[in-house]
Amino acid sequence: MPQPRNDAPIGVFDSGLGGLTVLRAVAAKLPHEDLVYLGDSARVPYGTRSAQTVVNYARACARKLREQQIKLLVVACNTVSAVALDILSAELDFPVLGVIAPGARAGVRASRNGRLGVLCTPGTVLSGAYPREAAAVSAEVKVFVEAAPLLVPLVEEGWLDGDVPRLAVRKYLGALVEHDIDALVLGCTHYPLLAAVIEREVADLHGSHVPVVDSAHALASELAEVLEKRQLSGSPGKVGKLRIFVTDMPNKFTEVASRFLGQDVASLDVTAIDL
Amino acid sequence: MPQPRNDAPIGVFDSGLGGLTVLRAVAAKLPHEDLVYLGDSARVPYGTRSAQTVVNYARACARKLREQQIKLLVVACNTVSAVALDILSAELDFPVLGVIAPGARAGVRASRNGRLGVLCTPGTVLSGAYPREAAAVSAEVKVFVEAAPLLVPLVEEGWLDGDVPRLAVRKYLGALVEHDIDALVLGCTHYPLLAAVIEREVADLHGSHVPVVDSAHALASELAEVLEKRQLSGSPGKVGKLRIFVTDMPNKFTEVASRFLGQDVASLDVTAIDL
Repeated sequence: MPQPRNDAPIGVFDSGLGGLTVLRAVAAKLPHEDLVYLGDSARVPYGTRSAQTVVNYARACARKLREQQIKLLVVACNTVSAVALDILSAELDFPVLGVIAPGARAGVRASRNGRLGVLCTPGTVLSGAYPREAAAVSAEVKVFVEAAPLLVPLVEEGWLDGDVPRLAVRKYLGALVEHDIDALVLGCTHYPLLAAVIEREVADLHGSHVPVVDSAHALASELAEVLEKRQLSGSPGKVGKLRIFVTDMPNKFTEVASRFLGQDVASLDVTAIDL
Repeated sequence: MPQPRNDAPIGVFDSGLGGLTVLRAVAAKLPHEDLVYLGDSARVPYGTRSAQTVVNYARACARKLREQQIKLLVVACNTVSAVALDILSAELDFPVLGVIAPGARAGVRASRNGRLGVLCTPGTVLSGAYPREAAAVSAEVKVFVEAAPLLVPLVEEGWLDGDVPRLAVRKYLGALVEHDIDALVLGCTHYPLLAAVIEREVADLHGSHVPVVDSAHALASELAEVLEKRQLSGSPGKVGKLRIFVTDMPNKFTEVASRFLGQDVASLDVTAIDL
């Protein structure tokens, strides 16, 4: 593998705009790195698709970011991380990081009694990726996963508080709390926007505080370590640039992107492309 | 235009499985006709995509059904009917029917005071198709459209009753009821599965009964008329065959398809294809 250039950008991709929560965590941790984000908004969501389709889509996204001569690829999508990370890592000539392993490791660390809950998409549940990654860290930990497909559209709709998200979250958390979980991983890049509701409801159902782990922060920390180890860190004095590619400019793009990124995106460099 | 064969199948397509509610209405109305359904389940939902992307996807679906030598195409998707029906009609050499015009016409008939409400996807709202089609029937009718993007994932999740769908439906209906609507069109093929909740909540909010119009039934009635006028009806003694194509075999396909079709689909002829 030829050594990529240190001043090359880090590529980040997701099935849509949810991965912007990961981009945000990466930018906060590594403000001097250039970032290129690709959101496959024309084909979102991946979470309900078959594994083979997800692999095909992921390859197309990686190919596009490779053209941007990235030094490292962050797969900011739990579904792709669950079913395509091995294939992408094997096929690409730069490091590839997913969100699941960092999230699972942080979840195991946060759990005191080894009963870890994970909220994620149906595709991620089927992949068995969270139990697998948690087992790789600790043989003792028990992992309980729950598919919560309605939370993605709730976030995209901007219904982040009120009765509907509260009741939907409670419904999904019910089974996890019955398993007496003692830590909860948000296994989808959309869920951090519902973190306040989820933290409140899981504590209320459980009767005591349950630490909630955001995979995006876990990933950003591990990414910083990988860059250092691989001697790929950019120049620390710089102010990183950000470019965004989307495969479709969805309705309300600015509104939704601003929500995920936590800042006004009107001034961002956004390009619509075909894959 | 060469006259298609009477014994050719009717093609029905949708962005996913929601159009199966239309297929169901067509099969009930025309049990002797062969039907070919194409669900573009790999790229569902269309409702949040740009018009150009929807047109491109719709062309690919129509091309696939054309290979099946259909005699007529039913666009069982409100979003495609809203933004691509004219283009498809112009490009194809057989009749093309959408769901919006029949739904709008039936809505106008159901409305006593000409204040028609429509629940639909964001894409359909932006297209302005319902107000346009209603205006074509009656200059007096006022049309109020409300995007209800959360109802599709609710139906796909199978949450058809209980507090979450009830509160989500109420939230979307609130603005329509404030406009004092006197009839409501379900402007998305998923919504008929929530018809009971919608009927109850709109009556409760409004204080009196509001007729709820299902575009699928309106379409099936107009389809029967078109077949007769164009001398395209199949042989009435036959028992129609049904084939289904999907571009991705989604998780829980059988469960979701059974829900939309209102019958067990285990015995159906389903093929996964690429477009």
